[in-house]
Formats: sequence, C-alpha cells, structure tokens
Amino acid sequence: MTRRAVFAEAAGSFMLFATVIGSGIMAERLAGGNVAIALLGNALATGAILFVLITMFGPVSGSHMNPAVTLVMRLRGHIRTDTAIAYVAAQLVGGIVGVWLAHLMFDLPILQLSAKIRSGPGQLAGEAIATFGLILAILGTAKMRPESIPISVALYITAAYWFTSSTSFANPAITIARSLSNSFAGIAPACVPAFIAAQLVGALAAHFIADTIFAEPHSEAA
Amino acid sequence: MTRRAVFAEAAGSFMLFATVIGSGIMAERLAGGNVAIALLGNALATGAILFVLITMFGPVSGSHMNPAVTLVMRLRGHIRTDTAIAYVAAQLVGGIVGVWLAHLMFDLPILQLSAKIRSGPGQLAGEAIATFGLILAILGTAKMRPESIPISVALYITAAYWFTSSTSFANPAITIARSLSNSFAGIAPACVPAFIAAQLVGALAAHFIADTIFAEPHSEAA
Amino acid sequence: MTRRAVFAEAAGSFMLFATVIGSGIMAERLAGGNVAIALLGNALATGAILFVLITMFGPVSGSHMNPAVTLVMRLRGHIRTDTAIAYVAAQLVGGIVGVWLAHLMFDLPILQLSAKIRSGPGQLAGEAIATFGLILAILGTAKMRPESIPISVALYITAAYWFTSSTSFANPAITIARSLSNSFAGIAPACVPAFIAAQLVGALAAHFIADTIFAEPHSEAA
Amino acid sequence: MTRRAVFAEAAGSFMLFATVIGSGIMAERLAGGNVAIALLGNALATGAILFVLITMFGPVSGSHMNPAVTLVMRLRGHIRTDTAIAYVAAQLVGGIVGVWLAHLMFDLPILQLSAKIRSGPGQLAGEAIATFGLILAILGTAKMRPESIPISVALYITAAYWFTSSTSFANPAITIARSLSNSFAGIAPACVPAFIAAQLVGALAAHFIADTIFAEPHSEAA
Repeated sequence: MTRRAVFAEAAGSFMLFATVIGSGIMAERLAGGNVAIALLGNALATGAILFVLITMFGPVSGSHMNPAVTLVMRLRGHIRTDTAIAYVAAQLVGGIVGVWLAHLMFDLPILQLSAKIRSGPGQLAGEAIATFGLILAILGTAKMRPESIPISVALYITAAYWFTSSTSFANPAITIARSLSNSFAGIAPACVPAFIAAQLVGALAAHFIADTIFAEPHSEAA
Repeated sequence: MTRRAVFAEAAGSFMLFATVIGSGIMAERLAGGNVAIALLGNALATGAILFVLITMFGPVSGSHMNPAVTLVMRLRGHIRTDTAIAYVAAQLVGGIVGVWLAHLMFDLPILQLSAKIRSGPGQLAGEAIATFGLILAILGTAKMRPESIPISVALYITAAYWFTSSTSFANPAITIARSLSNSFAGIAPACVPAFIAAQLVGALAAHFIADTIFAEPHSEAA
Repeated sequence: MTRRAVFAEAAGSFMLFATVIGSGIMAERLAGGNVAIALLGNALATGAILFVLITMFGPVSGSHMNPAVTLVMRLRGHIRTDTAIAYVAAQLVGGIVGVWLAHLMFDLPILQLSAKIRSGPGQLAGEAIATFGLILAILGTAKMRPESIPISVALYITAAYWFTSSTSFANPAITIARSLSNSFAGIAPACVPAFIAAQLVGALAAHFIADTIFAEPHSEAA
Repeated sequence: MTRRAVFAEAAGSFMLFATVIGSGIMAERLAGGNVAIALLGNALATGAILFVLITMFGPVSGSHMNPAVTLVMRLRGHIRTDTAIAYVAAQLVGGIVGVWLAHLMFDLPILQLSAKIRSGPGQLAGEAIATFGLILAILGTAKMRPESIPISVALYITAAYWFTSSTSFANPAITIARSLSNSFAGIAPACVPAFIAAQLVGALAAHFIADTIFAEPHSEAA
C-alpha cells in the first residue's frame, strides 16, 4: 500500500460521486419533469467521468472507487487486507466530500438526508444483477483485454443505469453517500443496508463464476 | 467446442437480452409517451452493453449471442455443427432467462406474451437490411481491423435501432425472447416467423457478398 | 482502380444514405414535434454508422462516400482521374438506392422530391464551414494518427449536425440524394446547386490550408 | 515556438468556439424550452469536436485551446514564455472569430454582448472544480496513457457540462468569447472576471496536486 494509491482512491471517489450527484441535480432541474431525459444526462455524465478517472487513476491504485470491487480484489489476493481497509475508508471520505461539493456548487444545503424510498424485491434484484455484471465486466475485461477496462466500465455503467430497475448503484460507498443527498440520485438511509447486501451478493456471485468462464488458456481443454 | 464457450454464449445472451428488455421497460416508464426519448435510452443501453459483452466473451466463444451470426460462422467453416447447435440452444435459454430477470427486476409478471404487432413489407425489409448490415459489419471488421469488432458491432446496432423501421431486432433468438415480453421491446408471437425469415435472408446475402468486397489481398489485382 | 473499391464506395454510400434518411424518418415520427430530440437520434445514428463503414471499407477504397473527399484525394494525387469518376458515380448510384430503400422500409412512396427549402447566406456559410472542417479532420487525422480516422470522421459529423445552421450535409452526393426524399433530412432540388458550390469552396479551402498546418516534420523549423 | 503551432492554436480555437456557440444556438432553437435536451446536444457536439481537434492539432501545438492549460504547461516548463503569450493571443483571436462565424451561420448579428448573468459562490465553485478536473485529467492522462488524451478531454468536458452548476466553461478564452454572444452559451461581460479567477484557482490547484498523485515510479516507495 502506498499513500499515493489511497489518495488516488479518495480523489477518484471525490470526482465520481460529485459527478453522480451534480449531474443528477442538473438533469432534474433542467428536464422539467421528463425523467427519461434526466436519466440520459445523468448516465452520460457518469459513464464519461468513469472513463477519465479509471484512465488516470487505474495505474496508481486500480481506481476501484467502490468497496465491492475492493472486496473482490482482496478475495482474489490482488491487494492486502490493510490496503483494502484504507481504500474503503478513502472511498467513503472522498466520496462524501464529493457529494457535499455538489451541494455547494448548486447552492443547496451541504448536509442533507435523502427521503427517496428505493426498495422491494425488484430493485434489490436490480442491485444484485447490476453489481454482478459490473464485477464480471471488470474481471473479464482485465483478463481478455486489460487496456479496455476504462471504456468497458464506463459503458457498463451507462447501460446499467437504464436496464436495472434501481438505476444501478452497484457500489456500497456510493449508496451510503447518496443517502446524504435529497436529490435525483438520492436514497433514503433506511433503504441503504438492503441495497448494500444485494450488491455484495451480486459481487460475490461474479467473483465465483468468473473463473469458470475466464479460466487460464491451459484449462481450455477441459 | 468447450463447455466454457457454450456457457459464455448463455451468459452473454442473458446479459444482452436483460438489457434490451430492461432498458426498454425503464425507457417507456420514464419517457412519458415520448417514444423518441425512449428509443434513445434503449439504443444507448443496448450499444453500450454489446461493447462490454463482446470485449469479454469474444475471446471465449466469439460472443455471437445471435443464431444468425452462428449460422454464418458455421457456413464459413469457423465452427462445427455440434458447436453451432449448442450455441443456439445456449443463446435461447440464456436469453429467455434474461428476459424473465428483467421482468423480475421491474416487478412485472415473469411469464408474458407480447401483443405488439410488428409486420408488413416495410418492417420485413427493415429486418433483412438490419441483419445484412450486421453480418457485413462483423465480417468486414473481422477482416480489416479485428480489434475493432466490439465497438463496430455496438455502434452498428445503435445506428440500426434508428435507421430501420423495425428498430432492428436482427437476431432470431432475441426475436423469440422478445415475444415473451409485453413491453416496449416486445413482438407478438405470430409476427416472429416472418421476422426470422427476413433476418436469415439478410444474413445469407451478407455472407455471400462479403467475399466479393473483403477478399484476400492477393485477389486485389482482379 | 479495382472493381472491388468501386463496389465498396457503392455499398458504403448505400448504407450511409439509408441511415441518414431512415433515422431522420424514424426520429421525426417518434419525436412528436420536438426537433432537438429528432436531431439527437439522427446525429447519433449517422455518426455511429460512419464509424462502422469507414472501419470496414476504408482499407478497400478509402471509404470516401463523398465526392468532395474524392475531389480532394484526386487533387492530392492519391487516386487517378478515372478512379475518381467511378467513385463519384458509385456514390451517387449506391446512395440513391439507399434513399429509396429507406422509403421502402418506412412504407413511403419510393420516388419523392423534397419540398424543404434550405437556403440563405447563413446556411451556405454553414455548408462551407462544415465541409472545410470535414476535409481538415480527414487530412489532419490521416497525417497525425491514421488509425483514428473512423472515430474522427464519426465524431466530426456528429458535432457538425449540431453546430452548423444547415445541420451539415457536407457531401455533394448526399445533397443530391436527400433532394429525393421529402422527409426530415430532405432538401428541395432548387437548393441543391448552391449547397454543392458552398461545399466545394469549403473543401478546397481545407485542401489548401492543410499543408500549412500539417506539414512534414522537416519543415517544422520554418 | 513555430508559426505552425500558433496557427494550430488559432484554428483549433476557431473550430471549438464555433462549435460551442453554434451548437448552443441550434440546441436552444430546436429544444422548444426543454433546456436539458439543449444541454445534451450542446455537450455532445462539444465533446465530439474536442476529440477531433486534439487528435489532429495535438501533435502540432499540444492543442491547448485554453489559456489555463497554456499557463500550466508554462509553469511545468513544457513551453517558453513567448510561446505561451502567442498561444493565448491565438486562442483569443481564433476563438472570437469562431464565435462570430457561428452568428453568421445562424443569421444573427455578428457583434453581440451577452446579458446572461452567471454568478454566485455555487457557480464560481463549479468553475474552480471544473478547471481543476480538466487540468488533472490532462496531466494524469498524459502521464499514464498519453494516447488517450483526446478521448479523456472530450469525455471530461462532456461530463463537466452536466455535473457543474456553471455547465463548465473551464477556459478563460472561451469565457471571454462567450461574453460576445447573447445566446444559450453566453455569459454577461461583468461576470467574466470572477469566472476566470475561479478557473485559475482550480487550474493551479490541479497543477500542484498532480505531482502528488502522478509522481515518477521511482518515488512510488515514498
């Protein structure tokens, strides 16, 4: 673990979460009630910034910006436990400051709690499948075409904003951070634990299934 | 044929079909009757996930996710007959489960039949040209710049959603699977056979024409 | 000149023009009068198909699909006069068939003439600058990073649909072909000559200015 | 400094500023009051043209098109002072001519002053963070994956149009130039100095922080 890597996780999460919240506020303000247009703007901005952040921070820290990713990388032995803990702390601190910055930019109260209820089996299934797909995309692209990771993750999240009923949080840190914003991208605090549980189920499923699909070439003969 | 490749076809079709149906439901719900905005979201999500899936599953199975592609690859001798049959079965099973998952995520009845009539010579011509263009794009890109296949297929389908009157199914498996969803992306079962026939005509036309355009360099002097 | 290259010009123009007209019809039908949304769909489809076509036909014929490009390539000595003539003929024939196919797909009369007036000094300035920028993008990208030509041309046209008052035809063949469609992308035949003249002015300006900016490294010391 | 590089700065700024203003006018005219759709078109066009311009002019001049970028490159010792001064002059002259061309294309009075008030601590924070992120993206991508600079800058600005309350000018020259257009993208002249000050604060912050994150590998052990 280097201090530089932990700082990159904080900086990346700061920019990512500010983008998710800020573009959500902007989209909702401008769209005049047409939520589909708001989601287009929100998805476009989130996908675009993901490409930029993973391109520049990837070589420094892996650019997880997501405790579910950090957990899987720990389980696969790519990082140590103390690094994983520091990463998650950096993601939460950097990300929450990013949310607050978005509020500041849009002249909103800094400290908020979301009142938006997001719950039910459909949305939880959405979170599980969204996170399953994200981890699979990361592990599969990393094995098959590692230079495509920034674009793969960016496009995966762009798609997932649209195809999952929950608009794809797929990230425990961003779920917590979004509970602190009573805006387009918010989620009521009471709904957070179930979302995170569903995300972890999806992430672990992808972790276990990945080796079955993306095995080493020498086992191809099986 | 490896079990891994067949599994990759099932997993890819599962994610692709869930995205097509799920983003269609999301788009229709949010767009408030403006179908153009719904199609923007549907096309964006479908193109984006195609890039991701072909990037990661391409090296495993070719990432056909489409019986018309599998048929052409069989005709060109790239895969064996038993592989082709297993691929098509995997596409159908994985894809239909993906449709059902989309219903589950959006709290809809799992088992549905579409009532949306899609027929007439214009739409059948649309399906033929959509599939013709898709196969041509795959064969041409594979010959000229194989590393661009994921982005070429993704962008081709994004365009085809807009320029064909049928919004470009271009895939017999997805045509069958979409008949099982009474949502934005659905098609009435009675309309399925004609759509598939038109798709196969387009695919075969592209297969036969491709060698005329994309021949080996040594025949360039002709 | 090879027959293959001429055929590639016809096939590329066929697909490109069908996309421009088809996506315009689709967008106008679905957008319910909101022309900005229609232009989003039209621009997205056109940019996307350009990437695909240039990727696969570029190595065969250069994938001009545009007499202004062919003229500049002739002036720069990259192709012979008879090739240029055959290319332009192929672009016109292939492209017009593409327009007719779009009409067929959307159950419209095949033979049409546009009644949409596009004229005035502002729109002619728009065509000149649109074609100037297109030729500059092609020549500049070809010199600096030739592997980026498909994405550069695709993104240039996507931008130009939005920043020029004429929505950027930038192509004499497509201008003629679009006069044969009384739809979103049409142009009245009487307006065609001035559009083409403006396009040629822009193309020649870019041809002459390009060597000033993108000269050989050895003249860098000047 | 070469005359060619200075000319490339002028040409790039000319095309970029014409796109920002022109697509803003087009979007506002077509969107019928739905500002979110207007911003989609404006952001799409700006991001797309940035990719094209940086791809072709980057090898000639670095393709700054932005005094904040030129300042940082001077501070980092990548260019000389006289080059920096000539670049900024070229950006302003080329860019303002681009704005006037956009007015010409859309049949508007050439000489205008914007009346759109953009002010307040939220928008100034937005400009600071927008420019901070832009400089960080440029420096980080240049160090980690220099071939991705065109796409990184394009996608960063696309995102920043949405996630900042000011819609991300992030460029002193474009701020001045936009004060000369009473259209969608305009800014009242009285608001310009504070915007530029905020941009320079953000740029300098990114300049100083960049070496902490993106240091040379040999200092990784620190």
